[in-house]
Amino acid sequence: MKISEIGGEFALIRRLMSRDAGDPAIIKGVGDDCAVLAYTPDKYLVVTTDMMVENSHFASQWFTPFQVGRKLMEVNVSDVVAMGGVPRFAFISVALTKETEVEYMDELYRGIYASGAKHGVHLIGGDTTHGSEIVLNLVVIGEVEKNLLCLRSDAKPGDLVCVTGTLGGNQAGLELLLAGKSGHTIEFLEPECRLASEGRLIARYANAMIDVSDGLGSEVRHICEESGVGARIDCGKIPLSPEVIASAGAVGKDPCDYALYGGEDFELVFSIPPERLSRLQEEFPDFTVVGEILPREEGAFLVRDGERIDIGKGYDHFAE
Amino acid sequence: MKISEIGGEFALIRRLMSRDAGDPAIIKGVGDDCAVLAYTPDKYLVVTTDMMVENSHFASQWFTPFQVGRKLMEVNVSDVVAMGGVPRFAFISVALTKETEVEYMDELYRGIYASGAKHGVHLIGGDTTHGSEIVLNLVVIGEVEKNLLCLRSDAKPGDLVCVTGTLGGNQAGLELLLAGKSGHTIEFLEPECRLASEGRLIARYANAMIDVSDGLGSEVRHICEESGVGARIDCGKIPLSPEVIASAGAVGKDPCDYALYGGEDFELVFSIPPERLSRLQEEFPDFTVVGEILPREEGAFLVRDGERIDIGKGYDHFAE
Repeated sequence: MKISEIGGEFALIRRLMSRDAGDPAIIKGVGDDCAVLAYTPDKYLVVTTDMMVENSHFASQWFTPFQVGRKLMEVNVSDVVAMGGVPRFAFISVALTKETEVEYMDELYRGIYASGAKHGVHLIGGDTTHGSEIVLNLVVIGEVEKNLLCLRSDAKPGDLVCVTGTLGGNQAGLELLLAGKSGHTIEFLEPECRLASEGRLIARYANAMIDVSDGLGSEVRHICEESGVGARIDCGKIPLSPEVIASAGAVGKDPCDYALYGGEDFELVFSIPPERLSRLQEEFPDFTVVGEILPREEGAFLVRDGERIDIGKGYDHFAE
Repeated sequence: MKISEIGGEFALIRRLMSRDAGDPAIIKGVGDDCAVLAYTPDKYLVVTTDMMVENSHFASQWFTPFQVGRKLMEVNVSDVVAMGGVPRFAFISVALTKETEVEYMDELYRGIYASGAKHGVHLIGGDTTHGSEIVLNLVVIGEVEKNLLCLRSDAKPGDLVCVTGTLGGNQAGLELLLAGKSGHTIEFLEPECRLASEGRLIARYANAMIDVSDGLGSEVRHICEESGVGARIDCGKIPLSPEVIASAGAVGKDPCDYALYGGEDFELVFSIPPERLSRLQEEFPDFTVVGEILPREEGAFLVRDGERIDIGKGYDHFAE
């Protein structure tokens, strides 16, 4: 049976991953950006892992090895930031090919260390092996104060849905490169996740939080599923930069689709009670209200040009 | 420049991995079976990761997906056991191909859970993506009491070098399969690492410990390099099972080479002061003395048929 036949990547994970591990040290297992484990009396340990495969997550004709290394770290740190955590330690696994040059590895690691230094992450272990294509896996371990932990599952009806920065930049760059055009490709080639200090300001006020790794639509759907709520997203309010709007125009695409169904923008999506909004805005103004959390029975949907549309699935590695 | 030109896999790791991370929470970074991190007042956290690539670490014509999953867990748990630790949590990353069937994944995870249950490990997170071949990465996090932590770097001249169980079974099975013969392939297809309870009995008495993942020669060399010592290994004392001796004979190979240069036997190699030997033997008799730790200036060597031979490198993924 094909994986697409059972519903794709997320259905596969639901099928394979047990959710009731039955160990009191497991605060949160599968179903969030990081697993959360008991740690000190006032902190949790958070753990995340992401794998990147050549030609699936990065094409060597577009990405320098430095950019690949940088992205590998940002992808993982983003998950820790989305929990309200501080990333601390990283572990890398690399499958190289027989043709991989030492210079490629030097640059790859320079990128990993550059991003790691920015985020205060120490690379302290790993595994090196070989395969027929380059595969990179990073694990990042971080910590979060118990009162700052921000799960996907804590959104409440009445919360406002917000996103940091602007969306769609990653997909905009990809589409330009696919069309053989130059322009605003930097957000695709050098995606930057939010800093822990920003995530932690948000975590003081937000109920639920998640990072954008598969598009806004997919992330809001995750929040709804894990929190048992519905949501309305007003497409007209989704923050788009002039560069992304121009890039989409250059290839005849809708920039709102980039934001909703594009990939790895690594901005933060969070839900916050309306009465806390102004206090967060005073401390951290770089976000936009794009919708509202609703009771579950109202469903999860977009309002786009006055029409109600079900929230789509985002990027699925095993879609047909 | 080719990776083999700088000296292969271990030279590459030395080149790329920084050893002075400068964070007091890092008790031990690169250079042991696990990284060791500060945790509770009386325990350390230990973290290990291993990647397995189809056709490099497992061939689908030989391994059932259940066996692949089982091996993935055993490989990683072995590293925690070799620190004197108890494995607790696992995180998996999987790159599948577009052709991978749901049934394959069901069996793979059944193997992971079966081995995890044996060792008390909960699988609580991961990442699923796709590539052109199946690549699996597991991370295992465990814990160890500070007084039981067993590093590669604590061997002392005068210590006896010991190995648990018997060696060479993994390579014996591989060579039979490569030759198209049947026989004792079980240690290749279903390698089993030592239990944490066994590693912890040893850790109470041993100075240094490491697991056998690249052959006895390579592991002893690691102990010597990290401890700043030499060693003598008496090849005649290396424990070999009748099955391994017969298997080697069937393909015209030397079973001692299997033990020294073969791969993933997942037994434990440890160094122990002679005066503690009998006390360990009373509690855990399943090991053999194969040599002695020497002062560094005497070198690291094998005594084989009366001749002194430098200790070889074991398996290197990037050897020419």
